[in-house]
Amino acid sequence: VRIVVAGFGRVGRTFVSHLLDREEQLRLESGVALRLVAVATSRSTWLPPEHAEPAPLRAAIAAERFQRLPGRHEEWNAEEAIRHVEADLLVEATGGDPRHGEPATTNVRAALEHGLHVVAASKGAFVHGRSMHDLAARRGLQLRVGAAAGAALPTIDLARYALAGTRIESVEGILNGTSNYILGAMAASGSAFADALHDAQVIGAAEPNPELDVDGVDTACKLVIIANAVLGADIGLDDVPVHGISGLEPEDLERAAARGRTIRLLGTLRRGGSGWQARVEPTPLPLAHPLASVSGFEKGISYTSDLMDRVTAIGGRSDPNGAAAALTRDILNLVAVLPEGLSSPAPL
Amino acid sequence: VRIVVAGFGRVGRTFVSHLLDREEQLRLESGVALRLVAVATSRSTWLPPEHAEPAPLRAAIAAERFQRLPGRHEEWNAEEAIRHVEADLLVEATGGDPRHGEPATTNVRAALEHGLHVVAASKGAFVHGRSMHDLAARRGLQLRVGAAAGAALPTIDLARYALAGTRIESVEGILNGTSNYILGAMAASGSAFADALHDAQVIGAAEPNPELDVDGVDTACKLVIIANAVLGADIGLDDVPVHGISGLEPEDLERAAARGRTIRLLGTLRRGGSGWQARVEPTPLPLAHPLASVSGFEKGISYTSDLMDRVTAIGGRSDPNGAAAALTRDILNLVAVLPEGLSSPAPL
Repeated sequence: VRIVVAGFGRVGRTFVSHLLDREEQLRLESGVALRLVAVATSRSTWLPPEHAEPAPLRAAIAAERFQRLPGRHEEWNAEEAIRHVEADLLVEATGGDPRHGEPATTNVRAALEHGLHVVAASKGAFVHGRSMHDLAARRGLQLRVGAAAGAALPTIDLARYALAGTRIESVEGILNGTSNYILGAMAASGSAFADALHDAQVIGAAEPNPELDVDGVDTACKLVIIANAVLGADIGLDDVPVHGISGLEPEDLERAAARGRTIRLLGTLRRGGSGWQARVEPTPLPLAHPLASVSGFEKGISYTSDLMDRVTAIGGRSDPNGAAAALTRDILNLVAVLPEGLSSPAPL
Repeated sequence: VRIVVAGFGRVGRTFVSHLLDREEQLRLESGVALRLVAVATSRSTWLPPEHAEPAPLRAAIAAERFQRLPGRHEEWNAEEAIRHVEADLLVEATGGDPRHGEPATTNVRAALEHGLHVVAASKGAFVHGRSMHDLAARRGLQLRVGAAAGAALPTIDLARYALAGTRIESVEGILNGTSNYILGAMAASGSAFADALHDAQVIGAAEPNPELDVDGVDTACKLVIIANAVLGADIGLDDVPVHGISGLEPEDLERAAARGRTIRLLGTLRRGGSGWQARVEPTPLPLAHPLASVSGFEKGISYTSDLMDRVTAIGGRSDPNGAAAALTRDILNLVAVLPEGLSSPAPL
């Protein structure tokens, strides 16, 4: 499986490092030969030599010295790389505001039009309707977005595999670790939102620009991606009423606690008369709710279906390593359903 | 996909009913045509007519009138049915003490030897080593055992799909709903084990013969099945030290509660020097442990892996409907990896 990676930010770099480290091990353990053939940024593309020593590559990657990576360099952006390089699969890991959707949407579309399967850690191509999923289906290609919707927390996989054959009726998720961490700190110490946010930034649990996290947009993106990918929905961010946590006062959390509840930034999806209704807002959960135990930087998701009742997943590493592992996971699961020829995974 | 069902107990009957109800819907939604071609008990086999009306079939099934089911009847046991009927897949759902392994082991072996894929809700064929998995791999056949190891709780699926590509280091599970219910009742009311068990039997939360549940054998079976199926282990029940809950006193639970802990019947798997070490015993969990919130008749499982840290799943319907849904789930996931020809699932 020849892989083009678009994006050389934290997730892209970590994924490339993992891949170089684990190529041989993955081939032995799962019978899948993954090979990196190109890494593209917005300005240029690196084509690694075929039998490179991984150690110097890893060092250059860790130092973010993209231009110094040994091998060929071309002045292609990711879309051009997709058109010029012979490959089987695009890993889309570009940055950028998911609300605007670029360059992710251009890259995903180019990949699908060129016959590449796609595995994405970026959100932008999937938060304005299901058109990329429909394009993939028309082209007979696989599109996997689990790494973009919770990463190491199995959101998409739970629906797709663990609940296969059931009718999912509703979804509840604590999908943003930063917000959950801040709410936990506010509840524990009685501190104000601004103070809890500042403390979280100091220890690296919140980013310098935390708006997408604390305003609920990141949660809304993940909900929309899940709905479009595995619930048959066709919705966009504009369809989701979003309320963040920045307006919460310590007294709100205290009042909830006095009633035996814990306030969380909850994303919900419910079947309505006209399709799926999504919503993001701070919500008091009873302590017996399965998501009430989601603590600190953790995330969690809970599906209710007709045949299996409620199934909840909690946890999974929340950092670039977790996201990179989620990309590898999605690639392995994608390859498992491909007809032989491109690859022949061994039975587990 | 032509299906032979072995076993006409609660799970087998429920699965057959579900299948008759949902054949058409599953074909439309997932592009998979599942067709029941035989149902075998230990004494005889029913071959349904090709275009039967489902309503009278369902009524006869609900009334457990096996001999009255419209269609052909033969004096074949399940093994003979597997040899005589043209089919693609065996659903193994026979009863019997899993420790003894029969008739499940004979049926699974016969199916694999005859080129049938296998999906199992029974445990007996998988609790004495991994030989059935190895046989399936040698024959290039799929063997899925999720319905036997937690059913609607995704135990196998979490490891196989959500953690694909990671190295699982340890597993903890509350895998028996009856035991968890009894421990919850003892903790809530301070009642003795025998009284809590009796109350559970009255409301149907415990079976008249609860030994396998409360002595920990059911938990041990599920652990062994998971280890052999997705952790590369080759272990049997004899390798598992098992301690049940019948010796616990209300004071034990009180003492644990005073220390901020909750006692649960925990099954654990850990990598040791010489392979996987399994163990079942009542264990005090800190309240912050992700499995501490597993309540009542629920089950839960928690995996720790190198790349994704801890991922936990909780819930899933614990009854024959949940088990039947788990069988259907496992069949759909199995069919998704088959080469085209036998079936052509539509992209999700």
